Amino acid sequence: MPRKIVVIGGVAAGPKAAARARRVDPEAEITIIEKEEILSYAGCGLPYWISGVVKEEKELISTPIGVLRDPKFFAKAKDIKALNRTEALEIDRERKVVHCQKLENDGKLEIPYDKLVIATGSAPIELKVEGAHLKNVTQLKDPDDAARLREAFSTACRKVTIVGGGLIGCEMTEAVRECGKLATIVEMQPRLLPGLLDDDLTLLLEKNLREQGITILTNSRVERLEGNDDGEVRKVVTADGREIDTEFVLMAVGVRPVVDLARKAGLDIGENGGIKVNSHMQTSDPDIYAAGDCVEHLASFVCELMLWPMGSVANKEGRVAGTNVAGGEETFRGIVGTNVLKVFNQNVGRTGLTSRGCEKLGLKTTTVVTASPDRAHYYPTAKPIVLKAIVETKSRRLLGVQGIGPGDVVKRMDIAATAIARKMTIDEVANLDLGYAPPYSSAMDPLINLANVMRNKLDGMFEGISAVEVKQKLDSGNDFVFLDVRSQDEYDTVHLPESTLIPLGALRDRLEELPTEGEIITFCKISLRGYEAARILTGRGFKNVKVMEGGVLAWPFETESS
Amino acid sequence: MPRKIVVIGGVAAGPKAAARARRVDPEAEITIIEKEEILSYAGCGLPYWISGVVKEEKELISTPIGVLRDPKFFAKAKDIKALNRTEALEIDRERKVVHCQKLENDGKLEIPYDKLVIATGSAPIELKVEGAHLKNVTQLKDPDDAARLREAFSTACRKVTIVGGGLIGCEMTEAVRECGKLATIVEMQPRLLPGLLDDDLTLLLEKNLREQGITILTNSRVERLEGNDDGEVRKVVTADGREIDTEFVLMAVGVRPVVDLARKAGLDIGENGGIKVNSHMQTSDPDIYAAGDCVEHLASFVCELMLWPMGSVANKEGRVAGTNVAGGEETFRGIVGTNVLKVFNQNVGRTGLTSRGCEKLGLKTTTVVTASPDRAHYYPTAKPIVLKAIVETKSRRLLGVQGIGPGDVVKRMDIAATAIARKMTIDEVANLDLGYAPPYSSAMDPLINLANVMRNKLDGMFEGISAVEVKQKLDSGNDFVFLDVRSQDEYDTVHLPESTLIPLGALRDRLEELPTEGEIITFCKISLRGYEAARILTGRGFKNVKVMEGGVLAWPFETESS
Repeated sequence: MPRKIVVIGGVAAGPKAAARARRVDPEAEITIIEKEEILSYAGCGLPYWISGVVKEEKELISTPIGVLRDPKFFAKAKDIKALNRTEALEIDRERKVVHCQKLENDGKLEIPYDKLVIATGSAPIELKVEGAHLKNVTQLKDPDDAARLREAFSTACRKVTIVGGGLIGCEMTEAVRECGKLATIVEMQPRLLPGLLDDDLTLLLEKNLREQGITILTNSRVERLEGNDDGEVRKVVTADGREIDTEFVLMAVGVRPVVDLARKAGLDIGENGGIKVNSHMQTSDPDIYAAGDCVEHLASFVCELMLWPMGSVANKEGRVAGTNVAGGEETFRGIVGTNVLKVFNQNVGRTGLTSRGCEKLGLKTTTVVTASPDRAHYYPTAKPIVLKAIVETKSRRLLGVQGIGPGDVVKRMDIAATAIARKMTIDEVANLDLGYAPPYSSAMDPLINLANVMRNKLDGMFEGISAVEVKQKLDSGNDFVFLDVRSQDEYDTVHLPESTLIPLGALRDRLEELPTEGEIITFCKISLRGYEAARILTGRGFKNVKVMEGGVLAWPFETESS
Repeated sequence: MPRKIVVIGGVAAGPKAAARARRVDPEAEITIIEKEEILSYAGCGLPYWISGVVKEEKELISTPIGVLRDPKFFAKAKDIKALNRTEALEIDRERKVVHCQKLENDGKLEIPYDKLVIATGSAPIELKVEGAHLKNVTQLKDPDDAARLREAFSTACRKVTIVGGGLIGCEMTEAVRECGKLATIVEMQPRLLPGLLDDDLTLLLEKNLREQGITILTNSRVERLEGNDDGEVRKVVTADGREIDTEFVLMAVGVRPVVDLARKAGLDIGENGGIKVNSHMQTSDPDIYAAGDCVEHLASFVCELMLWPMGSVANKEGRVAGTNVAGGEETFRGIVGTNVLKVFNQNVGRTGLTSRGCEKLGLKTTTVVTASPDRAHYYPTAKPIVLKAIVETKSRRLLGVQGIGPGDVVKRMDIAATAIARKMTIDEVANLDLGYAPPYSSAMDPLINLANVMRNKLDGMFEGISAVEVKQKLDSGNDFVFLDVRSQDEYDTVHLPESTLIPLGALRDRLEELPTEGEIITFCKISLRGYEAARILTGRGFKNVKVMEGGVLAWPFETESS
């Protein structure tokens, strides 16, 4: 008797599990159950179809060579029975059947399984506020939503409000601007990308978004939406009384794992709300596996369980589940927590833990921020990036890296993700043998430079201070010398408020201009010269010298020019 | 008494060591001795200045903000005495002095040291053939050579021959074409980039170079150069009697470590011809350190010593030497062996060992080749890459990765270099949590895909065969079915010689057309469908089925179209 494998969910982890199971067991009977019409679509690509970067919807629902991934394709190419427009209503674990309903004719269906994979994914969280059901208020959860957005954005509508400044909110902000609309982001938390980046990097993103003409309202909770007489949304009202004129609202306040079926079937659900699985992606029922956004993933480098709704994780887990339900043996080794996204010309990424994540786990950490060109500075495509590293102070183990800038941030996130997965120390990262040629990198790759600056800091070679802290000092009228050691030309082009210029080359001759006891904060464009200045000053007996990390490039506030 | 630190060599490792020593010890007296006029220039950038990609020579010899790195800069910004146009003649280890000669006035100079760093780098190997001293025959070792090449290429000269198809030869081929010249590469070995890539990947590079109009002569040893009456080179004659008309010859047959001073001083020289150092970059004399191209580097993941003349390694070692001579403590953890280069639109890279390198060490390995788009296939900037992995069969440990293609190869090399440094298995690589968003990657990153295909191969899910082996079979008239499982459209656009088309979707219905016992080699565009076809056939009892790895995209030979 061929093995009966049933997969609930036909978007990412589900089809992957089914396809993998087919390759492992050519004889199995494999069925996918999916509520929607469209199977196996590229959900992460939807913002790019809406913006027009991707021209045709069918590119998102086809194989790379243009074959539509419909039930016929699954039958012919994969020998998999794909039941779309079919809803799984209940899992009967005793009889090992899934009760389903065909949506086109309400017909009931019982599908027996030997092994079951739950891949029910995640769903957008619904914001329960007054007016949420007005016309022109939508979420982005599937191609139908995307089609609605595309249509709306092709009309004369001018003002779009995005509620939620997370990943999807930020990606959609770009799409909205690309469509020629005015965009406002409303975020409840103090910063965009809450939980994903540390504040100092998010501030750089927010600065850039404002330069792109985006209105950003943080610390703003939406209280209600107001409509016109036709029931079309016209206003977003926040708890602090702000009123935003709008003709379209995209709700993007996050997603939650879809676990209703699993819960009803009595499977264990974790503290974060996802299905509990072991490293085989097996649930508390040995014949039922789960994969993708609906499960809790293990961040193995710190032994934490977390939700992490990413297509990359879903696909890997789907493969593991597929192998195991088909009689093979494979384990999933967990995640590190990597996110990358493009917002306008900024490449943004993080991997491992953020500062807040470390705090929650009670880890004592040291952080450092650097700025540098992403490749040989003289190569014409070189663009700056700002990187931040977080290490556990005592063990010097790398815990997290974040980055932002028009340069190649993502490569450095991937390298760091690999280093973090194997618990590398910052000293090991500094020694990595990364590829060097001028079109790709500098002789000291920015990530290696980041590691070396961190080592200098850990070894007491300098005391660092972040741009955010300096700004607080300035705002509160603290007395210190804000020492710019760049050249006069650089200073004239752009300089920071209340800064004093002494170019590095002149510093040794002008030491008497500086207070031996008072606080001095040095910086330059990227704070390499700032660091050298600090070394000179401490070498000459100055007592209280700090380097502003990342220099002018990492300064997320207003600047001045002569 | 301040510590006296002397550094011999002012290009890469030397200035790095000096600058680092200054930061570690603000009081030390630090001197750099450099024979040439120009210090601390970006040698790796010279091909891009010659081609015009980099506009001004000064960009290569200045800091990122445009300050010339001359003795004045070293004095002012770094408090380092840089003696350029000064040759170190001899190291007197007993008296701890370096005997030097000022080149401008032949003045003799004795420079005392407490700690010495030798960073004498590498020099181009001189090809001792008749005519090597003709006019318009040059090497590319420093900015003066580059200036000569720039001048030559701005003349009416049409035909340029590059002797040596290694890294510099290949980079210079692009520069020559960019200058509008005809280029011929003459390489003694059977393939370009000898020692750097496996043959199957080099064949793809050679195919691409030929498409760019480059003439490639491999297996060709230059016997002599012939000139005209003015002593200008006019012909390159090879040992097998080929005569290449030429007006300019660039000699790029490799580099050798410059160790004369070290040898004369009685320091230990290794078997590969580089200075022997320990992990502190300390030579056999505890007061003398060495760093950069002139030393032998430890490839720690396989405990092999090797030469590896790369600016990235030189800078890291310079830092370590600089720390240690200034009273600090730092170790260098060795290299993996990473090279990346851009040749026209191809990004080329390798990290770890090549197949030949593994063979030399007696390692039993399994290799696999894959092809895929470098990011979401529907994202408009997606471009293909071909990757190859080498693992130790028994331990499943990753030993090497290579890549080529117009897509982002280099990112994958850096990730792999990190994985290899920590001796990851291919299963760990498959589980890496790499950043995913459509503008950067696919949900299953190409490197993860490569790892999974390798796992399938190691686990006996398919038997692979390389394009090179298939071509040999075709050429020797072997009897097998060369089974293309792509669509009719794809086949019509381009197909491989002697292939039979049965699209994957039709395969299950057309099995009777195939021989149950005979050999079948399946493929598609990238050989994912080819793999699925093989799984179907083996599942149905076909005995001798192989998958051609990488499919049409990795096929480096002629193709046909209908």
